[in-house]
Amino acid sequence: MHGLMQNMPLMISSLIGHAERNHGDTEIVSRETTGGIHRYTYRDAHRRARQLARALLSLGVKPADRVATLAWNNHRHFELYYGVSGLGAILNTVNPRLFPEQVAYIVNHAEDGLVFFDLTFLPLVEGIAPHCKGVRSWVAMCDRARLPDSKLDLLCYEDLVNAHSDDYEWPEFDERTASSLCYTSGTTGNPKGALYSHRSTVLHAYGSALPDALNLSARDTVLPVVPLFHVNAWGLPYACALAGSKLVMPGPQLDGASLYELFEQEQVTVSAGVPTIWLGLLQHLQAKGLKLSTVQRLVIGGSAAPPAMIRTFDDAFGVTVLHAWGMTEMSPLGTVNTPKGKHLKLSAAERDKLRLNQGRPIYGVDMKIVDDEGRELPRDGKAFGDLLVRGPWIVSGYFKGEGGNVLREGGWFPTGDVATLDADGYMQITDRSKDVIKSGGEWISSIELENLAVSHPAVAEAAVIGVAHPKWDERPMLVVVRKPDQALTREQLLDFMRDKVAKWWLPDDVVFVDSLPHTATGKLLKTKLREDFRSHKLPS
Amino acid sequence: MHGLMQNMPLMISSLIGHAERNHGDTEIVSRETTGGIHRYTYRDAHRRARQLARALLSLGVKPADRVATLAWNNHRHFELYYGVSGLGAILNTVNPRLFPEQVAYIVNHAEDGLVFFDLTFLPLVEGIAPHCKGVRSWVAMCDRARLPDSKLDLLCYEDLVNAHSDDYEWPEFDERTASSLCYTSGTTGNPKGALYSHRSTVLHAYGSALPDALNLSARDTVLPVVPLFHVNAWGLPYACALAGSKLVMPGPQLDGASLYELFEQEQVTVSAGVPTIWLGLLQHLQAKGLKLSTVQRLVIGGSAAPPAMIRTFDDAFGVTVLHAWGMTEMSPLGTVNTPKGKHLKLSAAERDKLRLNQGRPIYGVDMKIVDDEGRELPRDGKAFGDLLVRGPWIVSGYFKGEGGNVLREGGWFPTGDVATLDADGYMQITDRSKDVIKSGGEWISSIELENLAVSHPAVAEAAVIGVAHPKWDERPMLVVVRKPDQALTREQLLDFMRDKVAKWWLPDDVVFVDSLPHTATGKLLKTKLREDFRSHKLPS
Repeated sequence: MHGLMQNMPLMISSLIGHAERNHGDTEIVSRETTGGIHRYTYRDAHRRARQLARALLSLGVKPADRVATLAWNNHRHFELYYGVSGLGAILNTVNPRLFPEQVAYIVNHAEDGLVFFDLTFLPLVEGIAPHCKGVRSWVAMCDRARLPDSKLDLLCYEDLVNAHSDDYEWPEFDERTASSLCYTSGTTGNPKGALYSHRSTVLHAYGSALPDALNLSARDTVLPVVPLFHVNAWGLPYACALAGSKLVMPGPQLDGASLYELFEQEQVTVSAGVPTIWLGLLQHLQAKGLKLSTVQRLVIGGSAAPPAMIRTFDDAFGVTVLHAWGMTEMSPLGTVNTPKGKHLKLSAAERDKLRLNQGRPIYGVDMKIVDDEGRELPRDGKAFGDLLVRGPWIVSGYFKGEGGNVLREGGWFPTGDVATLDADGYMQITDRSKDVIKSGGEWISSIELENLAVSHPAVAEAAVIGVAHPKWDERPMLVVVRKPDQALTREQLLDFMRDKVAKWWLPDDVVFVDSLPHTATGKLLKTKLREDFRSHKLPS
Repeated sequence: MHGLMQNMPLMISSLIGHAERNHGDTEIVSRETTGGIHRYTYRDAHRRARQLARALLSLGVKPADRVATLAWNNHRHFELYYGVSGLGAILNTVNPRLFPEQVAYIVNHAEDGLVFFDLTFLPLVEGIAPHCKGVRSWVAMCDRARLPDSKLDLLCYEDLVNAHSDDYEWPEFDERTASSLCYTSGTTGNPKGALYSHRSTVLHAYGSALPDALNLSARDTVLPVVPLFHVNAWGLPYACALAGSKLVMPGPQLDGASLYELFEQEQVTVSAGVPTIWLGLLQHLQAKGLKLSTVQRLVIGGSAAPPAMIRTFDDAFGVTVLHAWGMTEMSPLGTVNTPKGKHLKLSAAERDKLRLNQGRPIYGVDMKIVDDEGRELPRDGKAFGDLLVRGPWIVSGYFKGEGGNVLREGGWFPTGDVATLDADGYMQITDRSKDVIKSGGEWISSIELENLAVSHPAVAEAAVIGVAHPKWDERPMLVVVRKPDQALTREQLLDFMRDKVAKWWLPDDVVFVDSLPHTATGKLLKTKLREDFRSHKLPS
């Protein structure tokens, strides 16, 4: 027997409709790609998103068609979020920082018929256009006066919008309909597309606005540093409309000074981005002796937040750092680190320790950790295993079936992370699944050993990899870069580590090198290291 | 094209599962019907809800079967919320304060096969049992030692639970499946049932926990004074599990002293109930010179909160009163009064004024106001019309089709309230649709006139009703109870009101009476008044 409740689908268009009706004069402020500040309201944005939808229809866009963006965080990109998905088409936000061949691969794989781009990316667009035959039009996100000369026959965003009336009603359709498409930037193989739906996006917006997630209200002013081309800017363009928060879009200028200026001018209360951004801001604040007068919370994700940074923001600036974790395949939010009632009485040191982990799952995200055989491991804060997740805003597979059936038994998605869970629900990542060292049936965390090694004063950087071992399958070895002019021997370093880890975790060998291989985004490239040391002979 | 997101239905059982995994040691504290405090955790509650589900299955309960409760707010009632709905059956929470004939009507109309009751209600149960032939078993919510002698063959709750293991996995099924059934206590006709679904309940839980709604986190301790037999205690048993808030259940003792004791002992941060409750608490606090040391927010709904009370709680006790509005047909939450960023700079007097209205809609609730012809009226804070609502947690009809097709064109549900909406989304109820006076095609608010009349120092109580008029269709007349020993004439009162309302709003007549008719819950019974004065001759 069904309940007798209204059968209303969860539609992305209802988010902007809600914002217009109830927060019509709340501002969306953008730093434009061409400089200067653009300022308008949710009412204006909704009107222009409807004009845009009519423009898209006039360009032949049909439901399920893919429309790409190569764009910064600004009001036009926001309009595309609602205009494209609202009419039933699919917004494919492409990361313009990828190699041009990857951008072209994504545009072709997604079969994008239109590409909207900010002027910054004209050279990129001109470079890939010959390889993207499926693109019918390239649309420059500017007005007629700024439309650049190009060998391409460009359309002008403002002309398109202005040519159409806002007399358009968003259609209602099945909430499972695809709404947007983000490609993961996997270190191996081609990027794979996560295809979100209206349902998953709206549920994620509810979940991410909750008090123990990003805690968004109509009293907040939110500045997403995280790009709109990166997992929907962690969902903020949706969650802010849900909550009626003022939005501040930083455009291309993400340095500490530019962000600080916007924070103060627009009285930002919440911002979100990766640790590098906040280190830049912190350096600017400290160099200039500045204070943050309105910021309350900084959300950090993408990689683990350095403890010292969390403490400095809290102590010196009165800003709470929210440590969050997620992934493209999770829309992206999985966990946020907020304290419970019982933690409010802890000492500062104890709470510091608590907030270094990745936090508790938002309702809607189930997590468990399993061993090699898929057996669930205890939630004791000690056992670590492959982290599996499940929920209505987590992928069931990739676009066009790339990667095959990715789910484990019971519908669980393997995150590729190794983690602990504790009895309070807090999750801590201890390794990547592909980096963990499996020795004699037990697992050894490469990250924990690396953290220990770099805590030695003579070590600049360290990597731990597993090397084949006849008896134990794998044993850890340590690859170390010394600090300049520091002497340090294999035995000295092992002695330093010896009483700080379980005996069987101690690396079997230490090798000193001049530098370690990194990815373009600065992450350790362990695949390369493992190749280099594939036939390394461990001392017996 | 569908998105590629996991196809997980929104299930009520996933709320308690989430609470157990992530808030296993968070407490649920209950004042027992038999006195004393019961204390356990979400982990215990989940275990016992699973045992209960097995017990229900062993008693022959099948999916879609209705199971009734006549019970206070306590841990067993909480277990029934999850145990019954979790297995796919429907929990029918019945208001034990209704007349026995109404209770019997509901039990028969719902076709409840089992009735769970607190010992307080044994006489009620014994009284209605002969008229409720469909009930297979009456279950006393107590242990064997407290099982009362009865002419009925009672089952014992604790025996049932203890006879079954917790080895039970909640089934997954269509999220639109009915989960619970609450009857409205309409003033006219028989009660009608609102039939909630798993989907509507989970979405309502997300919406109600948001920062601009009840703002629930794992740092909160929530005491629902609003009964679990009244629209699911405003959804708190679900929203608290979602947020991991500690729950404190007050049992039958809702007087100021008992509530104060629980507030302080359990360090309650949030409570929710009708204005009468908070007046009782306030009197107790003021009489004894007490402070509230942990309470941050009191949610008020059910009827409008008196301004003086809101101010006193804020000024004298540092407690924020959240004015909320909803109805059984809305699960129930529609609006909550919280300020926006732009209001934070208002003067205290301006903010006071702002928070007297019923607040802004939670995302998920659409509202509009319409005139007699169904034309939408402006959102200008002045025009008032019939308030219509729409959304996934609002009814599409009543159980068994009672009342026929209740929705207006476009799927809008008429609330029966008359209200204004302003450009910021704030809603203010100005009348009940059936009480508004329609004079010459324009509407006159009976409530505004009543409020004005009672602001005269000699008036104890006032009611305004419409009386038939040959030219204007209806004209307002005022029925007044004078304060003891006060002299007040018709002309004096009209003179007092004359310059405070539009000329054509001024009542055509004033009649003084000794008392006004009220419903059992203390509301003015205007149907009776309209009958009494049906042939009243207005002076010309």
